[in-house]
Amino acid sequence: VFHDVAYKAKDRNDLLSGIDEFLDQVTVLPPGEWDPSIRIEPPKSVPSQEKRKAPKFPNGSTPTGETLKQEGHHAGPELERTGRLFGGLILDIQRKAPFFLSDFKDALSLQCLASILFLYCACMSPVITFGGLLGEATQGRISAIESLFGASLTGVAYSLFAGQPLTILGSTGPVLVFEKILFKFCRDYDLSYLSLRTSIGLWTAFLCIVLVATDASSLVCYITRFTEEAFAALICIIFIYEALEKLFHLGEVYAFNMHNDLDKLTLYSCVCSEPEKPNNDTLQVWKSKNKSVDNIAWSNLTVSDCLEFHGVFRGSACGHHGPYIPDVLFWSVILFFTTFFLSSFFKQFKTKRYFPTKVRSTISDFAVFLTIVIMVLIDYLMGVPSPKLHVPEKFEPTRKDRGWFIDPLGTNPWWTLLVAAVPALLCTILIFMDQQITAVIINRKEHKLKKGCGYHLDLLMVGVMLGVCSVMGLPWFVAATVLSISHVNSLKVESECSAPGEQPKFLGIREQRVTGLMIFVLMGLSVFMTSVLKFIPMPVLYGVFLYMGVSSLKGIQFFDRIKLFGMPAKHQPDLIYLRYVPLWKVHIFTVVQLTCLVLLWVIKASAAAVVFPMMVLALVFIRKLMDLCFTKRELSWLDDLMPESKKKKEDDKKKKEKAEAERILRAGDNESIHLAYGEANLDFPVKTLKYSVDPSVVNISDEMAKTAQWKALAMSTENAKVTRANL
Amino acid sequence: VFHDVAYKAKDRNDLLSGIDEFLDQVTVLPPGEWDPSIRIEPPKSVPSQEKRKAPKFPNGSTPTGETLKQEGHHAGPELERTGRLFGGLILDIQRKAPFFLSDFKDALSLQCLASILFLYCACMSPVITFGGLLGEATQGRISAIESLFGASLTGVAYSLFAGQPLTILGSTGPVLVFEKILFKFCRDYDLSYLSLRTSIGLWTAFLCIVLVATDASSLVCYITRFTEEAFAALICIIFIYEALEKLFHLGEVYAFNMHNDLDKLTLYSCVCSEPEKPNNDTLQVWKSKNKSVDNIAWSNLTVSDCLEFHGVFRGSACGHHGPYIPDVLFWSVILFFTTFFLSSFFKQFKTKRYFPTKVRSTISDFAVFLTIVIMVLIDYLMGVPSPKLHVPEKFEPTRKDRGWFIDPLGTNPWWTLLVAAVPALLCTILIFMDQQITAVIINRKEHKLKKGCGYHLDLLMVGVMLGVCSVMGLPWFVAATVLSISHVNSLKVESECSAPGEQPKFLGIREQRVTGLMIFVLMGLSVFMTSVLKFIPMPVLYGVFLYMGVSSLKGIQFFDRIKLFGMPAKHQPDLIYLRYVPLWKVHIFTVVQLTCLVLLWVIKASAAAVVFPMMVLALVFIRKLMDLCFTKRELSWLDDLMPESKKKKEDDKKKKEKAEAERILRAGDNESIHLAYGEANLDFPVKTLKYSVDPSVVNISDEMAKTAQWKALAMSTENAKVTRANL
Repeated sequence: VFHDVAYKAKDRNDLLSGIDEFLDQVTVLPPGEWDPSIRIEPPKSVPSQEKRKAPKFPNGSTPTGETLKQEGHHAGPELERTGRLFGGLILDIQRKAPFFLSDFKDALSLQCLASILFLYCACMSPVITFGGLLGEATQGRISAIESLFGASLTGVAYSLFAGQPLTILGSTGPVLVFEKILFKFCRDYDLSYLSLRTSIGLWTAFLCIVLVATDASSLVCYITRFTEEAFAALICIIFIYEALEKLFHLGEVYAFNMHNDLDKLTLYSCVCSEPEKPNNDTLQVWKSKNKSVDNIAWSNLTVSDCLEFHGVFRGSACGHHGPYIPDVLFWSVILFFTTFFLSSFFKQFKTKRYFPTKVRSTISDFAVFLTIVIMVLIDYLMGVPSPKLHVPEKFEPTRKDRGWFIDPLGTNPWWTLLVAAVPALLCTILIFMDQQITAVIINRKEHKLKKGCGYHLDLLMVGVMLGVCSVMGLPWFVAATVLSISHVNSLKVESECSAPGEQPKFLGIREQRVTGLMIFVLMGLSVFMTSVLKFIPMPVLYGVFLYMGVSSLKGIQFFDRIKLFGMPAKHQPDLIYLRYVPLWKVHIFTVVQLTCLVLLWVIKASAAAVVFPMMVLALVFIRKLMDLCFTKRELSWLDDLMPESKKKKEDDKKKKEKAEAERILRAGDNESIHLAYGEANLDFPVKTLKYSVDPSVVNISDEMAKTAQWKALAMSTENAKVTRANL
Repeated sequence: VFHDVAYKAKDRNDLLSGIDEFLDQVTVLPPGEWDPSIRIEPPKSVPSQEKRKAPKFPNGSTPTGETLKQEGHHAGPELERTGRLFGGLILDIQRKAPFFLSDFKDALSLQCLASILFLYCACMSPVITFGGLLGEATQGRISAIESLFGASLTGVAYSLFAGQPLTILGSTGPVLVFEKILFKFCRDYDLSYLSLRTSIGLWTAFLCIVLVATDASSLVCYITRFTEEAFAALICIIFIYEALEKLFHLGEVYAFNMHNDLDKLTLYSCVCSEPEKPNNDTLQVWKSKNKSVDNIAWSNLTVSDCLEFHGVFRGSACGHHGPYIPDVLFWSVILFFTTFFLSSFFKQFKTKRYFPTKVRSTISDFAVFLTIVIMVLIDYLMGVPSPKLHVPEKFEPTRKDRGWFIDPLGTNPWWTLLVAAVPALLCTILIFMDQQITAVIINRKEHKLKKGCGYHLDLLMVGVMLGVCSVMGLPWFVAATVLSISHVNSLKVESECSAPGEQPKFLGIREQRVTGLMIFVLMGLSVFMTSVLKFIPMPVLYGVFLYMGVSSLKGIQFFDRIKLFGMPAKHQPDLIYLRYVPLWKVHIFTVVQLTCLVLLWVIKASAAAVVFPMMVLALVFIRKLMDLCFTKRELSWLDDLMPESKKKKEDDKKKKEKAEAERILRAGDNESIHLAYGEANLDFPVKTLKYSVDPSVVNISDEMAKTAQWKALAMSTENAKVTRANL
């Protein structure tokens, strides 16, 4: 470039500006200078490219005080305590109402269709599985069809009126545990489960509304990156773990013969035969079917008949619980991993060199749906009887003895209505934590959301729908972390003219209500689509879960820090916190976080799963304790409120400004030298400014002692400083 | 960096030199200047790193005339026609003899062990498979054990005494086709196959020695990159195709039930039963075994017994040729792809960030062997009866009616001894082309071989061993392209202190005779290792073939050019020929090459496979024809004798030199300006020199008209010029 610039230059001045342009384009080495291990990263974007795009901020790339304030995480006005009843809620509605129309207009994009198809497929299986599990636990009182109906109802209402419609509602583990315990309690004390559940649900709904009225969501600002990431990491790991566990579970259901002799396949069979010593249970079964040992044609029974008549499987082709099932397990494994790798490959297709940008980004958007379609086709063509998705075929309650409306009292004594308030308290904490942490993750400033958030409105919707679901005898739904992250990721808008290899520039999220709405409308209509849905193999859906879990892990700083353990110092990437915090302290921070994660995992997996939300709450206090062994400055780098890339950019910018000064200093032009010295003198103030821009000033440890009002003030002075520094 | 440099500088001069250092480190944008799609590639190595290493060339990084001459592809003294009988051979021996001792000393490295283990595993299967196929074709006259013995014998002799011991000998397709045709001919005319084969072999050996005596290998210099790449690409594609084809073949052998009803598994069986209408053949079989329909316990027969007695398989678990085989096919698919991906992953482990460099490079070296060990373990633990490698267990000829020495006349009439010269001529061309193209690919200057090549000596060894194998009734072996490339790749020495992400710097090949020797010694000893080898599943070996085929494809410029078809212009990588040749001409060049490749494929697959080497020869003439529609300069960029990276480096260097001049020109120092103007004046001569350094001068089209002697002269003047230009 330099060479060309020099050639084109007509005179000395022209040359000078050419060299300036050239220097703008060079990659500045990061400050490990002569360390050969430091890799020069390709620049995130070529400056000249920058100019082509319309600036995101009104004043070019310099964020004004207002935009910065909008970006400022939980510190925005959304979470200020108003002191009035429903004050926060009213502000939420006032903030979101002007965007309501655009929430539908903004959905006119192919990407939204891709997002709907992806998340519809992704949501179906957990909702049905959860319903199935609940059905098992409650003897069919609440089962798959109730789950499907409830999810659809809640989802539609939430998507239409919530403060953050990007959040996807789903069923969560702790809720399932809570329902199980409740059912066991009711059985033991001979109470009507559905009625008691309804009264608890109504109390919970009431308590949620109380929390909304008192602006309790403003407490969310105490959730720092430390808590967020530990929680998100846990949920992602659970997702990955469950995907793999389900695959392993298939290994039990579809047992294969590990010691097959291929030459003896002619002698290979597993036939049903009569049990040697039928026990009482068995005799009763026979009696009820008007059969005896002799008039059953044992060797002609199918597997299900044999199980029904308590027959015994005999033969070399028999496993522990019946005949060995050929091919299905290995075919499932192939489907599972192919789905995972194919969807990852399609997703990354955007950064490949082939095909025009439009084609690439469309393939990337439809990655998961495309994968599912391909895998369903392959599975259909192979004909192996892999386990398929089973959707209820009729819209009616699973048990005939219940309707769509449940009486909160029913056959229970009247005082249960009041006592229900106690478990409702626990349930409220559970709902509140699950809902709000996910909301915090979705509302992160990294996502560059422009339409603002609405924690109070979110909670109101969840509370109201929880009441409705309780009255109708449907399961409860709250924000599902991994599904929500996947939803947001599927709606990312990135710069189109990105060169291959270069990381596409993130521009924002397609914020609208249509995707969420359509996902849940489709879910409600699923009952009428069983003829299509029954072709989807479960291992493909498990593969999608693995993909969602793994892709949600990306961007969690916590994992970057864990990776540091396995890396020799010279190979470590140029992370901003490694520039300012000693490595051993970073490791300690990571170890503490890891310990919390392990503890959460243990609690989630143990019988005490119901106290899980309380443990998440405890994370906030553990984080507070860490102030004792870390300086504020260190914590500001590790537990930052600003995303890594932005911090680094600012840090680099400051370095570059200085370098610029030195460069001009060297140039032989008198005027330039003058300017350069002028700038060089600026060096000291710039350095001072740097410390004031330092995010340690907005350290959460301090923030906890301040009111939100004060903080907002501090923020704006801060912004003013930043603006000045950038001018 | 700049900023830091500026800060450390004590005075102005210090600052100047600091800035020089800084500018040395910046990445210069390639000449697509303002095109945003052009990606700035991370620099191949940080210059400061360069200084740490001992310079490869005596005079630092400036290659002297002599080293350049050594690097100059086929144009070196090795291929000059001496005009004396065996002149080339004598020179080869004189050149290689001084390295003989170091050929053993240089093997003291863990990498060599890794290479031995990898290639031993990789070579075993083709040798045995080829032997098996030959056994089928010749009714057991030459089979697996002969193939193993012959390969071992030839390999050991070749590794010890050949000119280029990096070449790995193997069995090639055309040879198999030739043997098949010969056997059919012998059967039709009632001749002794082994004897006729021996006389042909002896004639071929004689003709090869005549070729050596007349320095015929010097014709190799007419094989340009065009021919090399078309041939190598073909062999790689055949490798990949065959790996996949073998997997598909498993699908036929291990048929699975595509329409299995899992509920009817209790009724699922495939039993042997008597044929309804036994034909004469069947009756005869029964008679020979003293059996009749009634005294065979049909339903108790195993699969092999049933086939022996010509029984019929009946039942829902029966496929076309016997019982459906559960699990094996899908398990094989899993083994195949896991092997491929795992070995690719391990191989790339070198450039990962984790673990110290030593660990990473060891894992990378042992990639394939490690994968095989892991996969064998997993396969053993799963217990699925996947097809395994079968090695002959006894060292004796397959058929009892032949010994280890074959009489060239045998029962044939005396004139067959003379007539054998005609097919021997065809066979010689076949051997010569197969051997020498592979040798050319291995001796490429990209590989930076320091011990020189020896085309005449190579051919002599192949010829002599071909005679020995013929007399002993063993198959013939020539250089195998993909195995040889894999061998060279496994012995690559790369800079150790490479940072992750950065491409490690290629330093050379570990040239020695021990790896080749040990591979073939182990192969000979395989007969005694059947107890271990029988655990290796065939799908794992097929996976290794796929890996070898795919990894050998890398670095073939032809494929880079094919990829260009799918790339929009702005996403195309900065390839040197794209800088100087219009895109449509590059495409035409690629299309011609692709057409040749397809033609070769068709011929190889058709009945005319024996004329295949002649078609490879034709490639040289097709390349000559292309002089009509391409200018010399264009061909010099496309069909270059210099590797891409080197050309680019020189091109960039020239650009940089100019930029340097301009930069100093701009600096405000009087002395510098003076110097800069001095250099700037040099600009015109530099530009002239550039054209003389241009590889078009050594264009093969011209070379074909010149004698090798003249060429060597031209080369050295060329080198002198380059040296002058670099000073």
